[in-house]
Parts: sequence; structure tokens; C-alpha cells
Amino acid sequence: MHVGLVGLGKMGANMRERIRLAGHEVTGYDRNPDVTDVASLADLVAAMPAGERVVWVMVPSGAITDSVVNELAGLLGEGDILIDGGNSYYQDDLPHAELLAKRGIGFIDAGVSGGVWGLKNGYGLMVGGDAGLVERVMPVFDALRPPGDRANGFVHAGPVGAGHYSKMVHNGIEYGLMQAYAEGYELLAAKDLVTDVEGTMRAWTNGTVVRSWLLDLLVQALGQDPGLAAIDDWVEDSGEGRWTVDEAIDLAVPAPVISAALFARFASRQGESPAMKAVAALRQQFGGHAVKPAP
Amino acid sequence: MHVGLVGLGKMGANMRERIRLAGHEVTGYDRNPDVTDVASLADLVAAMPAGERVVWVMVPSGAITDSVVNELAGLLGEGDILIDGGNSYYQDDLPHAELLAKRGIGFIDAGVSGGVWGLKNGYGLMVGGDAGLVERVMPVFDALRPPGDRANGFVHAGPVGAGHYSKMVHNGIEYGLMQAYAEGYELLAAKDLVTDVEGTMRAWTNGTVVRSWLLDLLVQALGQDPGLAAIDDWVEDSGEGRWTVDEAIDLAVPAPVISAALFARFASRQGESPAMKAVAALRQQFGGHAVKPAP
Amino acid sequence: MHVGLVGLGKMGANMRERIRLAGHEVTGYDRNPDVTDVASLADLVAAMPAGERVVWVMVPSGAITDSVVNELAGLLGEGDILIDGGNSYYQDDLPHAELLAKRGIGFIDAGVSGGVWGLKNGYGLMVGGDAGLVERVMPVFDALRPPGDRANGFVHAGPVGAGHYSKMVHNGIEYGLMQAYAEGYELLAAKDLVTDVEGTMRAWTNGTVVRSWLLDLLVQALGQDPGLAAIDDWVEDSGEGRWTVDEAIDLAVPAPVISAALFARFASRQGESPAMKAVAALRQQFGGHAVKPAP
Amino acid sequence: MHVGLVGLGKMGANMRERIRLAGHEVTGYDRNPDVTDVASLADLVAAMPAGERVVWVMVPSGAITDSVVNELAGLLGEGDILIDGGNSYYQDDLPHAELLAKRGIGFIDAGVSGGVWGLKNGYGLMVGGDAGLVERVMPVFDALRPPGDRANGFVHAGPVGAGHYSKMVHNGIEYGLMQAYAEGYELLAAKDLVTDVEGTMRAWTNGTVVRSWLLDLLVQALGQDPGLAAIDDWVEDSGEGRWTVDEAIDLAVPAPVISAALFARFASRQGESPAMKAVAALRQQFGGHAVKPAP
Repeated sequence: MHVGLVGLGKMGANMRERIRLAGHEVTGYDRNPDVTDVASLADLVAAMPAGERVVWVMVPSGAITDSVVNELAGLLGEGDILIDGGNSYYQDDLPHAELLAKRGIGFIDAGVSGGVWGLKNGYGLMVGGDAGLVERVMPVFDALRPPGDRANGFVHAGPVGAGHYSKMVHNGIEYGLMQAYAEGYELLAAKDLVTDVEGTMRAWTNGTVVRSWLLDLLVQALGQDPGLAAIDDWVEDSGEGRWTVDEAIDLAVPAPVISAALFARFASRQGESPAMKAVAALRQQFGGHAVKPAP
Repeated sequence: MHVGLVGLGKMGANMRERIRLAGHEVTGYDRNPDVTDVASLADLVAAMPAGERVVWVMVPSGAITDSVVNELAGLLGEGDILIDGGNSYYQDDLPHAELLAKRGIGFIDAGVSGGVWGLKNGYGLMVGGDAGLVERVMPVFDALRPPGDRANGFVHAGPVGAGHYSKMVHNGIEYGLMQAYAEGYELLAAKDLVTDVEGTMRAWTNGTVVRSWLLDLLVQALGQDPGLAAIDDWVEDSGEGRWTVDEAIDLAVPAPVISAALFARFASRQGESPAMKAVAALRQQFGGHAVKPAP
Repeated sequence: MHVGLVGLGKMGANMRERIRLAGHEVTGYDRNPDVTDVASLADLVAAMPAGERVVWVMVPSGAITDSVVNELAGLLGEGDILIDGGNSYYQDDLPHAELLAKRGIGFIDAGVSGGVWGLKNGYGLMVGGDAGLVERVMPVFDALRPPGDRANGFVHAGPVGAGHYSKMVHNGIEYGLMQAYAEGYELLAAKDLVTDVEGTMRAWTNGTVVRSWLLDLLVQALGQDPGLAAIDDWVEDSGEGRWTVDEAIDLAVPAPVISAALFARFASRQGESPAMKAVAALRQQFGGHAVKPAP
Repeated sequence: MHVGLVGLGKMGANMRERIRLAGHEVTGYDRNPDVTDVASLADLVAAMPAGERVVWVMVPSGAITDSVVNELAGLLGEGDILIDGGNSYYQDDLPHAELLAKRGIGFIDAGVSGGVWGLKNGYGLMVGGDAGLVERVMPVFDALRPPGDRANGFVHAGPVGAGHYSKMVHNGIEYGLMQAYAEGYELLAAKDLVTDVEGTMRAWTNGTVVRSWLLDLLVQALGQDPGLAAIDDWVEDSGEGRWTVDEAIDLAVPAPVISAALFARFASRQGESPAMKAVAALRQQFGGHAVKPAP
């Protein structure tokens, strides 16, 4: 199978390599001339046989994905398939599918998990779309997913949008898991009684109820930088956590843990908190409690 | 009625004045010679008629209250009454009551709310103890509480401990209320659309569902220091919030709002968050996401 | 001043009365023939002098408000003013303003707080829009708001949308306040020590830091139905709380208290919680812990 | 090495088997005559050589552990070692250690994780105590822990108490992890778009960032009972979660995720929520909103 891969960043470049290692032909396109295989999207499309093309788009969600999908809608044709493997918002999928369908182009949305480790371990895949299309692209999914039973590492979660929806929820869970470990880490570190914090977390990686891949990574980070002395407590968020809480609100599903994890990230990035200034001001007003002057 | 008042800090000194204004005799004792009326607790006790003494203790909770109660247990006698009006932990009350009971001294625990405004407005009072004792001290309670219907501003909440338990819960609620206003303030301030943040909060002080005394105080603070520019976002907590959440845990009562308000204060005082460093480290490990170096 | 009032439900009917009591002429329209003053929107518009009309729309937000604004855009004309006083989403305001502006019709968004008590106490008002338009309608605002200083109970918060944005935040705060009192109530009720729960909350209504109008109402409810025996623990939410948390997410503002209050309402309406079934299943899997069979 | 094992419940019986499979002699005691190897604690102690005895106590924490430790303090002697492997509160450890030390008996606290799967996979172990004592008992720890590198699955976390403290934090994390997966599960299940909820979670078990042993177990539970139809949403908590949040409060460490997970369990067990009745009552008071009558 010949795959066109658009976007050769951290994720895309690794995926190109993994698909190639599985024996498929991959033509990659990126705006960066140093990494691209072809000069343009048009060249990418021209390199593949019409009606059998599979183009995997792996670019930032939102405006850039929109733009690539729009351009490919004009270049691909009847029988071709476009897969959006980026972290697109699931509600963007149906408009993309409908736009492409008008020209006979199939659409699959694919949530891809595994980060920089996917090249070696394989990527967890959640896809949405028409079953016939999914079946046609299965060789690519099989190349990307971890070896072993297909059901562990791949799912056809539902119609268009279900892949990105699942990935969004996956990332929401990820926020909660990370914060749970982080709170536990702080509780170990804050207590004089525990003299081997790193060793305790490392011990947890085998046999315990809390063992996981994220825990392995945290232990690795603590091994590289004990006490995390070199790292700031500033944590970015990349959209899926926000979408997950938005969705919880829309569905009236209580999500106290995922939202708490999200808010902790917001707070981590505030130089100062207007809310806590207000609380400090209030305490001063009613109780005459001392406040710290602003620095 | 002649009242002995131990502890003439911010609260105690004001209470002495309010009781005196109501026509009662008050003898105050404080370790600070500049503010005390007598030289020692023994002098305070000696100044009052045996068997009719009412001593109101208004000192920091914990070790200092313990010490004062212990000393007064040796000085007071049959028929006298000791009132602990500080923010003592409610579980400290029964041991104090039992110690005093052995010498025939009555005990009442009194939660006092109102802060620096109590001198003018009166103090909200929640008391625990024997009904007969409460009745005997009622003239003092009537002097301290706000004018008007006694049931608005005073309650005999239950047996020994019920006064401080009620005050603890009152303060837990207070944490939640303050945080709710503070989050709303930040949401106004963060939005360019609202050009008059202070005016909006001031408008809320009359007619709206959210009007309250705390809101009046926040508006006053914003009037004195628009944007709260002079105040740091560092917020102390004084124990009752912690006890309230401990109690919620003990009673298996969900308290998501009060605990969130408490944790926001903890976070406000952290120079850096070990937990968020861990989350940042994790993101770097699995996704190769950039981290900020520690400052 | 002659005001047209569209929507004579619980809020609208009371507002009609309050404006009339202030000496203004009000013509009301409602689809319900039993309460309306005129037979149609067209009749309402015809009853007022062209170019000086002020029409206050007080109907459910979303589709119904859209429909009424659209119809009035065709009936009103140059110099008239439409005020949306309902709980519209603030992002709906600008489209409405632009639609009306094409025909020379002014638009003001007004957040209105006070509930069923507004008729008697006056309504807290937060408005957005052009300053000149706001000035023209001030007699109506003055009629509706509580007596006394205009700045306490009324604010011109900013341009179009700022009124509804402020009302949204007001309601988000309201969620947090209510939940804080509710948690405190439960902590009193759960503790045998407190023998007079209703009395304790009533005592808090004067002199204390937590006194507020909402507390007065809770005490009133407890007076009417001690122990709240007649009421179910099922709590609706009406949109503004959700929008507030959505906005917090959009602005990256931590809102742990308001979101916790929202999620508590969601949970209150779940017959069963899929999430907690999953937790129960997990405990059984790893620990062999007993689970309750589904009823 | 000859080990005495007190408590042959679900955990203890499996641990006896695992230690025996490693080639050590184990004498077990339980109050249940059907499972015990000896008739009394005295017989258990008599069966082992004085001064070399290692007695592993695996009984419910609190009063029962206290009682067993007290009895063994009278039976064991100089040079013997008692290990508390139950889920004791870490602050109980030092009193136990001091009591035993008076008679020359060593004490080690051991947190044990792994549940019913430990027999097969090995148990994650976190121990506290004197390094010399820990070294002496290492053959037993090696028998119980998972095979492979000792540091993955075992840690000497610090002095007396550090083992149980670490286990407590481990369980606090566990609460957070479970709740994160549970919220994600509910978000998948609540969305019509996802047609294969079980398959999606199963796909996550390989390659993804959220893969973990707990996820494997949740997938297994969903495989056994799709939709978790047979299980109630009632979730017990066994103490360590509460202690973890108590500790967070004591250390002023923000723990929003672990506490949210704990409160969700409390809520799951409430037939009705007094707090939410209060919120419903408030909405009725200010807005005239309908309430549901109590059932």
C-alpha cells in the first residue's frame, strides 16, 4: 500500500518510519524542505495511483488542518481516502467528511496516542468512519498499531467523529491520571518520614495497583533529574482537556477529577491569581488580617 | 453583671468595649501591660465575687487556650463560669469542660463571628453547653450580639462543643463564599468585554441574588485599591477550614466546594508546586513537549 | 415613558407592575391571551410612538429570544430601542445588535437579578450597549432597580454583551454560594452534637461574616419545612452555570468552586452513576471487594 | 527462613502460599479453625526458634491490629521481628515499634499492594524501619515481591511508619486514577457517537499514554458485564483515601484530584443528599423554581 503522509513533525516523521518498516511505501510532505519527500501537496497526490490514494494528515488541529483538508479536497478524487490523524476537535470531522464526500473522497478520523514512543512501541489508534473505508486502510493501521491482538491498540469506535471523540476523552483521562500521580508525588516529597521518594515511586512500577506506563515515565524523569530541580512548575495544556470538560458540561456528566486537573494547569501558569488577591483582600476587610503587599 | 475578659487583642478589646457600652462591668486581662486592667489572672479572679464569676477567654486556640483554661481551673471555684470564645477546635471543649466540672466550674463554648466590625454591628454568637449556664450568661450574650430578635445573631446550638462546631462550619462556608466571589471577580477581570469590573460588583450589592456582607466588603476593598494592585495573592488559612474538611471526611459528607476553597489557599502560598513540576516532567517524557527550565 | 414588555411570565409580569408603579406606561404582550395587553407584537409596536419605542424582551433565551428579536427587527424602526432582559448567552448579543442596527434600531442587553422578590425589592441590573442608548432608557432602569444610590443595583458594565456576561458570572457565583451553604448545612445536620440546626443557621443571619440574602432564604425554607423533608435532592441547572465554566475554560481561569457546584447539580439528577459503577467494578477486580448488585 | 503469618484472609492466605512456593517454611494462624495451621498465637510463636522469629501480621487495621501486636509483644522476645503488613494508619506504627522495642522485638511496617493478583504476579512492597531489620527479613520480601529487579516492586522507604505512609499515598493515587478512568468511561458511554465503548477502552490498553494495569482490569470487568448492568453505583472506601486527604490538609498540599475522587465515593453512598435538598430549596425560594417533591 502506498500512503501519503502530510506533516512530518515529531509525530509524523516517526509514523512515516514505522509505516515504511512495515513494508509499505510512504511519500511524505512537509512545508519544511529539509524533511519533505516532495515539493507540494500536488506532487504528493500525483505520486500515488488515482482512486487508491490514502493520505494521512498529521498537522496541527484547527486552521492548519482545515487548510490542508480544503486543499486536498481539490487534489484528490473519487475513491481516494483522507485520514485526519491529528488532534482535531471531533466536531470538525463531519464538515470535513461532507466536503470530501461531495467529490467522492472518503474520510476517516483517527485518534493517535503514544507520543514519541510510538515509533518503537506502536501507536494506540481510535478511528471513526465508514466500515468499508476503515477496512481498506487496515494495512496502515496494522503497521502503526502495536503488535499483537488488533483489539488491543486499535478500535473502530463508531462513525465519523468517534475516533477524535475517543482520543479527546483519552486525553482527558490522561490529565486526571497525571495529576493523581503528581499529587501523590508531592505528598511523598512533603513528608520528612519518606527518605527515598524516587525509590518509592520506582517500587510502585511492579506488582502494585497503581502501576502504569505513565508511572514508568515519571520514575524515569525522577531518575534523570532527582527532585525535578531543573524543571519549572509551568504546565501547558493543548486543547483536548478543555474540550473534554466542555463535553462533560454539555452532556451533564460530572467530571470533578478531569476538571480539577485542568484547573491545576491553568493555575500553574498564572504569575499571580486575581482570585486569590480578592480572597486576601476580603480577609483583611472583615478580620483585619494582615496581607502581603504585592511584590 | 461583672465579666472577666482574658485576651485583649483585636477581638477581645472590642468585645470589652461592647460589653461595657451595654452597661456591664468588665475587667480585662492581657499579657500586654499596655492594655490590661489587672496584673494577673489571679487579680482578675479576685476582682469578681466568688461563685458568680463569668470569665470570657478570648485567646489563640490550642496551647494558649489550654494553658489559660488550666490556670483558671485552679483559680475559679464552685458556681463560676468559664466561656471559651476563641476559635478552639470543638473536640478540645469536652476535656476542658470535664476538667472544670471537677471543681464545680461551669463551661460554655462560644463561636464568635463578626471580625473587626463586631464592635459596631454586634457579634454573631453560637454557644454550646448546659442550658442553665447559658441562661445565666445571657446578659453578656445579649450585650455582644446584634440588636433585634435574639434568634437572629444568637443560638444555643447544643451541648458542650456545639458552639465551636457551628463556628467551624460557619468558617468553612465562609471559605466557599469567598472563593466563589473571587472566581467571579477573576472572570470579570479576565474579560475585555467588561469595562467596569468594580462597578459591576458594586451593582450586585443591592437587589441581586448574590448580595451579601462579604460582597459589600469586596466592593469596599476594590474601591480602596482598584484592581487590588497593592495586595499579594498569598492567602493564609487559620485552621477552621482544615477542620471543616477533616470533619467532612470523618462524616463521609461530600464537601467539594469547601475543600476546593481550602486547596486554593494552600496553592496560593506555594512558591513552586512539586505536583505541577511532576506533570510538566511527564508531558516531556511521553510527548517530548518542551518544559520551562526552573528559574 | 412608554415601555413595551414582551413576555409576561413570572419575571415579566412583575416587572410590568414595578414599572407601572413608578408611573410609566407599559403595554405588555404575551402569547397567553389571559395575561397579554395586546393581541400581537405588531399591536404592541403600533401602540407606541415611532422612533421613541422602548421594547423590553423578557422571554426564554435561545430560540425564542431569537425569534422575537427577528420579528421585532421587522416591526420596529429608526430610533427605537430593543432591550433583551432575558438570560441570553452573551455571545448572542452582538448578532442581535447588528441585525437591529441595520434598521436603525438600538440594542441593549440587560442582566436582571432578583427573582420573585424583585417586584418588592427592585431588581439588580447589569446592562451592556451604547452609552447614549443606556441614558435614554435610564427612567426604566431607575424604575426597576432598587431605590437608593443608582450605583448599588445598576451598572453600565460595558459595550453590547457586557450586561449578559456580567449576569452569567453573577449566576456562576450564585452556584458557588448556594453549594457552600448547602455543604455547611449538611455538616451541621450530619453531626449529632448540633441539636438546633435551623436555629444555628438563623443565628448566622445577623452579625456574622456569612450573612447574606441567600442565607436568609435558606433559613426561611428551613422554617417552612424543617429538615427539608418535603423536597427532593434533585437540582436543575439553567444554563448560566454551564456557560460560566465554559468561559473559565476559554479564558484559562481556574474555577474549582463554581465547577464543583455545577457538577454537584449534574450528579443530583443521575439515577445511577456510570462512573461510580466503573469504580465499584474496578475495586472488585483488583481487590475482590464485594459490590452491591444493581437494584 | 521460617515465617509466622497472622491473618489468613484473602490477602494473608495468598501470601502464605507465595512465601511457601519460594521455599520458605510458613506457619499460619487465623481465628478461623478451618484455615489456621496452629491453634493460637502462642502455638505460632512456639513453632519458631526464639530470637529468629519473623511474624508477619496481616489483619484489619485499627483495633484488631492493636490487639494482635499487644498479644505478640507478650509472646515474642529479644531478637524476634514483627512486621505489620496490614493497611495500618502510619501514625500507629511508632507506638507499636516502641512497645515492642521495650522487649527487644524489632518492628517493620510494610505496605502491600497487588490485591488478589499478588499470589501470581507478586506484591509491590513499601517498608519502613531499621535497615538491619529490613535486611534480615529480605528473603521474605524477595519471596513476596514480583520477580526481576528488586527496586521495581520493593522499597525501603524510610524509618518506622514510612512503609504505611507510602502505601497510604499509593492508595490515594489509586482513588484518583480510578475516578479518572471512570469519568472517561462515562463520557464515552454518554455519547451516542461512540458505538463501541468497550472496544475503545480495550484499544487503549496497548500503545496509548493511558495504558495501565487498572485499565486492563476495567476492560476485563466490561468484558464480563458489558455496560456494567449487574453492578450498583455504590462505592465503599476503606480508610487510606481519607487519611491521604487528611494528610494533604495537614501538610498544606493541594490535593484536588484525590479529594474529588474521595467525595465522589461518599456521594455514591448517599440515598439522598441533604446539601442538594438545600440547593433545591434555595432555588425555589428566590426564583420560584419548581422542586421535585421527596419520594
